Amino acid sequence: MTDADDGPPTEILDGTYRALSEHGYADLTLNDIAAESDRSKSLIHYYFDSKDELIDTFLRYLYDRYTDHVNETAAGETNWKQLTSLLERLFDEDESEQQFRTVLLEVKAQAPYNEPIRERLVEFDAALFERLEAIITAGIESGEFDTSVDPDRAAECLTATIHGAHARQVAIHQSTDRVYETVVEYVGIHLAADGNQQVTH
Amino acid sequence: MTDADDGPPTEILDGTYRALSEHGYADLTLNDIAAESDRSKSLIHYYFDSKDELIDTFLRYLYDRYTDHVNETAAGETNWKQLTSLLERLFDEDESEQQFRTVLLEVKAQAPYNEPIRERLVEFDAALFERLEAIITAGIESGEFDTSVDPDRAAECLTATIHGAHARQVAIHQSTDRVYETVVEYVGIHLAADGNQQVTH
Repeated sequence: MTDADDGPPTEILDGTYRALSEHGYADLTLNDIAAESDRSKSLIHYYFDSKDELIDTFLRYLYDRYTDHVNETAAGETNWKQLTSLLERLFDEDESEQQFRTVLLEVKAQAPYNEPIRERLVEFDAALFERLEAIITAGIESGEFDTSVDPDRAAECLTATIHGAHARQVAIHQSTDRVYETVVEYVGIHLAADGNQQVTH
Repeated sequence: MTDADDGPPTEILDGTYRALSEHGYADLTLNDIAAESDRSKSLIHYYFDSKDELIDTFLRYLYDRYTDHVNETAAGETNWKQLTSLLERLFDEDESEQQFRTVLLEVKAQAPYNEPIRERLVEFDAALFERLEAIITAGIESGEFDTSVDPDRAAECLTATIHGAHARQVAIHQSTDRVYETVVEYVGIHLAADGNQQVTH
């Protein structure tokens, strides 16, 4: 995303990201965001009437990054490869991924009390679910995945497992490695059409 | 838990629970806790020097409720029955369960910035993981579960899936039904020793 003439500088949104990941939502202040974005509080006020409005714009900005990440594909990849690459990215433990998950957990905890935030988060969740479902559906059509697989249920269960693994990593520093291995094994055993099971190994 | 002469009234801890579930951690004030517990702020100050100390005592109190819930068993239950009953409780969607999950999500989002809270949450997570692992291990020994099952990995994956399903329910109002069905099916196919697979159906 680049700065448009009529939009807020991305520095403010990037500063919000860093402030959220360092202080959490409960202790987030406009001062933190101003400091992290190297912009004045008055400039932030110029673009945003309220913290809610800033967070809403921030979440739309973050959503673009998230969907780029979730939908990333290399040309000519099989559905198997797309699914395993996606899982690999989603279970990646590098620092920037953990920072992203921390920010998302902070925002998630506001959702029960903040309807606009909840609406944005529904979109994040749907982006992941729909991507998983699309790969699985395409894989069934191409013969890579077993026809007995229900794409909806498989995608939903994977979505929940991924969310839970992320929350545990961020909140209690539990590595996602073991869950990743188990999920890859599950995908290999359950989704693979007969004779295709070696693909994940 | 009953009021001990030297401990804080449980009303304060129950009030903290209600205040957290209604306002969230970010907007939680001592006034809210006082109002919800029908106790004065000065009485709360008498027992707790700080909000951190109150939250720590609250989480120990909540932990007792949580472990009672997780470890609940009826006499003579098979390991199968214990596992499926536990999953049924954990995927229950009634209002009090959703309230509990909301409170836990609020607390979870503090963990990245608050080490004492993180330590308490590690115990919540371990209680669930260890209970699942113990049932699966016992079920392998009794011949109910397949000997090829790795109790650690199965318990870890189930723990992550349960956490994720709870967070999605609380944050984006996504029903846990479909994940529950898929998990029960997974347990039936993967964990059951051959010939035992009908038990979950």
